Amino acid sequence: MEWISKSKILIVGLGLMGGSYAKALKRLGYSVFAVDTRRAAIDYALEESIIDRGSSQADPELIGEADAIIFALYPGVFKAWIAENQSLFKPGTMITDVTGVKGSIVYDIQKMLRPDVEYIAAHPMAGREVYGVENSDDRIFHDANYIVTPTEKNTPEAIEWCKSLGKILGFRKVSVLSPEEHDEMIGFVSQLTHCIAVALMTCSDNQHLVDYTGDSFRDLTRIARINDAMWSELFLLNKPALLRQMDTFLSEFKQLRNMLEDEDRQGLCEKMRLSTERRALFGK
Amino acid sequence: MEWISKSKILIVGLGLMGGSYAKALKRLGYSVFAVDTRRAAIDYALEESIIDRGSSQADPELIGEADAIIFALYPGVFKAWIAENQSLFKPGTMITDVTGVKGSIVYDIQKMLRPDVEYIAAHPMAGREVYGVENSDDRIFHDANYIVTPTEKNTPEAIEWCKSLGKILGFRKVSVLSPEEHDEMIGFVSQLTHCIAVALMTCSDNQHLVDYTGDSFRDLTRIARINDAMWSELFLLNKPALLRQMDTFLSEFKQLRNMLEDEDRQGLCEKMRLSTERRALFGK
Repeated sequence: MEWISKSKILIVGLGLMGGSYAKALKRLGYSVFAVDTRRAAIDYALEESIIDRGSSQADPELIGEADAIIFALYPGVFKAWIAENQSLFKPGTMITDVTGVKGSIVYDIQKMLRPDVEYIAAHPMAGREVYGVENSDDRIFHDANYIVTPTEKNTPEAIEWCKSLGKILGFRKVSVLSPEEHDEMIGFVSQLTHCIAVALMTCSDNQHLVDYTGDSFRDLTRIARINDAMWSELFLLNKPALLRQMDTFLSEFKQLRNMLEDEDRQGLCEKMRLSTERRALFGK
Repeated sequence: MEWISKSKILIVGLGLMGGSYAKALKRLGYSVFAVDTRRAAIDYALEESIIDRGSSQADPELIGEADAIIFALYPGVFKAWIAENQSLFKPGTMITDVTGVKGSIVYDIQKMLRPDVEYIAAHPMAGREVYGVENSDDRIFHDANYIVTPTEKNTPEAIEWCKSLGKILGFRKVSVLSPEEHDEMIGFVSQLTHCIAVALMTCSDNQHLVDYTGDSFRDLTRIARINDAMWSELFLLNKPALLRQMDTFLSEFKQLRNMLEDEDRQGLCEKMRLSTERRALFGK
């Protein structure tokens, strides 16, 4: 049985993700606190015993008692919160997060952070198309991947602690990448796919599409229901990597298009065989 | 209870689709015959009681006894089979198919067909990423759409018969479109999505993608495991409509890309809100 050394855990931002962390950690026996400006989120979580204690403000007592703090906020809010409230941290506090971009966040926060606490960044690659602690569900971790993104400033102990956190939360696979590798990878597997889904959905205003679609269109557009405030922020914070990934995709897609125009059956078949072979590695 | 008037049904091409039709029709009490050049497919279907009678050749007796014939062949093979064997049809035979493109098939076959039989075209929008009668399963129809594509040559009786066939097979929704409307729609919801999945999968040769992906990448590339012979044929047979759909998508995708480059957060958010609103009509 894996275990982590920090037993009083504060979650800042109790939405879908923060709530799912809380549920998993509470069940494992940790003391779970939460801070969220939405009073209803805290009330709900207390009533449902998802957290032990909570506040709709940056409560100095809760913050000062926490051994570890998990930030589940939008990137911009995350930075501002640290700047404003880090004086309340207990010396030795371990800090991690769930932010979907890393390079534009991690170095800034490590730079501004008090020297007696440590921030080790992580990205749990799980989510749903619904919001709020009311929809939180830690089963979303079980088939998902978790990426720890340390910098040279991080200690081996913090890296191990963060990997263990991913394991006890129940993630399928825990990996370690640099912030830059992470951003390139996420630009491809997550942000690019959301761009494609949005672009596909904006192609047609036919109200009866649902009567003519197969599973393929439904699958490709499931993520086209998207939180525009969060995802536009994530896209802009990862602009160089995402632009590179979009341009690679554009080039591949245009190749296919031109093969069709030229009636190059051989070329089309080769592309399809390559995609089939690569996708087979995924298993499902 | 819906019923169709032709009770001895011959299926030509006993693969995944033909086999799934056979299972559904057999269970409903129809006499089901099959012709497939793959002897093993016929043997398997007889052993499993998926069909009543079968042959690996164009058996004149089976063909002459059928009240209705369902073609589940590749488009090119379909045309050739009709040309070669239509002299064996019983007068009044009702003919339909499962072909994924219509404009480039339907008129040619209606033109070459004997005047005493009728071909009413249909497209069952169901499928799986596996092949053969051994993997057939008529439950794939239950959440799927079925499109009948009549021409001016078709009688109201044949159109009704074909719609009833879709209903008794268990399709969620049965619609009627012209061959041209069908091809444009299918170019968008089915062929374009397969092009996107293939292009996405050919972007990266990273063997460890599976460790860093979320559900979104898996969903968008599920159909990247693709039967290259069949799909390249379908793409080429629907070239003008598919090219139009690919170009529309390219234009939408490039707009998003340029908004990102220009850091146009407002524009990105508007696209995301539009896609969210449209996708919400699908329900899931």
